[in-house]
Amino acid sequence: MKTRGSWVASANHPESEFPIENLPFGRFMPTGLDQADPRLGVAIGDQILDLGALVRAIPIPADESAAFAPLAAGDLNAFMALHKKYHQQVRARLTAILSKNGQGDAARVQGCLVPQSQARMVMPCTVGDYTDFYTSIHHATSVGSLFRPDNPLLPNYKWVPIGYHGRSSTLQVSGGDIPRPSGQIKPAEGPPVFGPCQKLDFELEVGFFLGAGNAPGVPIPIAEAEDHFFGLCLLNDWSARDIQSWEYQPLGPFLSKNFATTLSPWIVTREALAPFRVPYTRPVDDPAPLPYLTDPENQQAGGIDLHLQISIQSAEMRARNLSPHVLAKTNLKYSFWTMAQLITHHSSNGCLMRSGDLLGSGTMSGPDSSEAGSLLELTRGGKEALTLPSGETRRFIEDGDAIEITGFCQNASATRIGLGSCRAVIGST
Amino acid sequence: MKTRGSWVASANHPESEFPIENLPFGRFMPTGLDQADPRLGVAIGDQILDLGALVRAIPIPADESAAFAPLAAGDLNAFMALHKKYHQQVRARLTAILSKNGQGDAARVQGCLVPQSQARMVMPCTVGDYTDFYTSIHHATSVGSLFRPDNPLLPNYKWVPIGYHGRSSTLQVSGGDIPRPSGQIKPAEGPPVFGPCQKLDFELEVGFFLGAGNAPGVPIPIAEAEDHFFGLCLLNDWSARDIQSWEYQPLGPFLSKNFATTLSPWIVTREALAPFRVPYTRPVDDPAPLPYLTDPENQQAGGIDLHLQISIQSAEMRARNLSPHVLAKTNLKYSFWTMAQLITHHSSNGCLMRSGDLLGSGTMSGPDSSEAGSLLELTRGGKEALTLPSGETRRFIEDGDAIEITGFCQNASATRIGLGSCRAVIGST
Repeated sequence: MKTRGSWVASANHPESEFPIENLPFGRFMPTGLDQADPRLGVAIGDQILDLGALVRAIPIPADESAAFAPLAAGDLNAFMALHKKYHQQVRARLTAILSKNGQGDAARVQGCLVPQSQARMVMPCTVGDYTDFYTSIHHATSVGSLFRPDNPLLPNYKWVPIGYHGRSSTLQVSGGDIPRPSGQIKPAEGPPVFGPCQKLDFELEVGFFLGAGNAPGVPIPIAEAEDHFFGLCLLNDWSARDIQSWEYQPLGPFLSKNFATTLSPWIVTREALAPFRVPYTRPVDDPAPLPYLTDPENQQAGGIDLHLQISIQSAEMRARNLSPHVLAKTNLKYSFWTMAQLITHHSSNGCLMRSGDLLGSGTMSGPDSSEAGSLLELTRGGKEALTLPSGETRRFIEDGDAIEITGFCQNASATRIGLGSCRAVIGST
Repeated sequence: MKTRGSWVASANHPESEFPIENLPFGRFMPTGLDQADPRLGVAIGDQILDLGALVRAIPIPADESAAFAPLAAGDLNAFMALHKKYHQQVRARLTAILSKNGQGDAARVQGCLVPQSQARMVMPCTVGDYTDFYTSIHHATSVGSLFRPDNPLLPNYKWVPIGYHGRSSTLQVSGGDIPRPSGQIKPAEGPPVFGPCQKLDFELEVGFFLGAGNAPGVPIPIAEAEDHFFGLCLLNDWSARDIQSWEYQPLGPFLSKNFATTLSPWIVTREALAPFRVPYTRPVDDPAPLPYLTDPENQQAGGIDLHLQISIQSAEMRARNLSPHVLAKTNLKYSFWTMAQLITHHSSNGCLMRSGDLLGSGTMSGPDSSEAGSLLELTRGGKEALTLPSGETRRFIEDGDAIEITGFCQNASATRIGLGSCRAVIGST
């Protein structure tokens, strides 16, 4: 159902990623105030509504003060930990304040808006632990086929939501430069050498943020898992393929991944995503998930119809004013496991989950080879070079390349919402 | 060189783990004050010196206030981040205060002592990220031989310090009960089932705490790595072998490990370990480490001669007053990689390391089969049952079993220091 829009005019532009139906959370530093504490805000059009300023500027009803207090204090983790009714309360209040109907407050709220162009985004919350999953069966199959042509998919894949722990210290929001990592690389002949990665890749992913955590040792049942989901962002799990192939046995990826993971700065909430939920289905010849991962509601609306896209713009393309080149388009709905299944599986051994914890979807490749979320797939392990609009070719990422993930939700009955940008430039330009 | 000891009499007992030469750091809650903030302390004999109380009780020289300030504030991470000269300054001051020569202060300091029997230990610092390595070539070989008899050691082992990310949320100090985890288990025939782990194991490890971190993207050279080492503890990397064998391919261990990791509560410092450093050597037919992992000082004293032991005491043994049964004795000096090499390798891709980060050694098995640090090795994958003094047998850990790791350093020229206890009881008794 389309609303009448916001008195913040830029939010009503049909191309805006942040209409009043979105209202994602982020943390920012106003330009020139780099010594101040970061502030929490909500994106609206091309502006940020400073939540601390808002609470000082307008009266918040007493029964909403518990919901707004952590936001005013700049502590998104504390807000995420609250019951969903508080999240809904804040969303309703912000919608009222920012809608055209709420124009009575506009004069006071206007002073709480900071242009996004005058803010530097920082990590939206503290991520205690970051886990990366592997939920695209298309990615798992095509990567597996590069290494094991006869047996691309391992026997556990359709039963276990495969995941591993990532590094929380090197999570960073969109916009930075990422130095090319060095590491041990094994040539075809002879001993390994230490040097700069020659096979740098991206992985197009979505990151799910935990809301309320669990009690230590107490699994989260599948029927309750959605209530522990706060929201999501775009995620690039940068991967050094040459370091990875030499180091990863038997304990999995390590230095090939932990030099950097880039996130889009805005957390789009569960409430904003509600109109875009889709059924979760599996091909009839696949085994059904085990009972602890099965729930009727999750089957009915466990998927998320989120369009995803990744593009490249080389230094030469920027110098020649050539637009970024789209490498692939895909969709989160291709996930073999729902976000609720990931949360339930992760806590099924009693593992403590904390508010702000981040779960990556894994590379979200689709069924068609054009929908691949990594260069490893798009160039078949570097065997088939891609040609860019500049005439340059790419097997892996070169220094100066800007890689950007974007995403949006859109359907016939709801206003389009966007995810913002997850972008970084590799090495020196 | 033996000192004259402390005026805290229990510290001078030859069996004391905490003589004045040790002075490890920990965080504690005095019994009955569970609502208060935890306090930082140093173990001395059977007492804890409350560092906050100490700073209030005696005058600290002005040039030492920067070193003592984070300790008084209860922030061990901030203290760990300081340059080693501050660590040495605090150690010298505490040694002076607690030594027999320092008896002039004894009356005032006496009031700052809390009996260890009246304190509950908590995590000594905030661990941002926890990484577990795999540094015993004996463990890697004997575990590998269970799965790949013809090719037990993978080709990367002697080149790459193999490691993976663990879960920081489930780190806990010694003393708690650990529920038996459930998970997906694959029977020999048929589909996987979800249920309680049937092959619960321990892993006898040592945990290294980072002192100063690095700047983002800047590797720590091997010649400087020791300066980033703050101290160590004992670590039990509990492992659900049946969950592990089904889930671990291709991304490594996950739910089989992250239900709990137990640490001994005291961080024994680099300074206390100095008399027990030993050369780091490799068999002559093994490849030399690559240059980024090679340093003359590290070769001369990169090892640590730390005796380790693991014991079991079943519920029946406790009921019958039977002493814990020693399962294995081993030593940290068997590590194929030094702690400095782990730090340098971990940061070699620019990965951000933060004060308080924890690096596990991996299961520290020795060359003899009696020196194995896991039941997987001691029972050859559960094939050969062990008999306990009670007549009970064990292939894996049963509910009610108390598993305890202890450790100490001792040589002819220095006073023996102990590591304390890393103990937990599995399941219900």
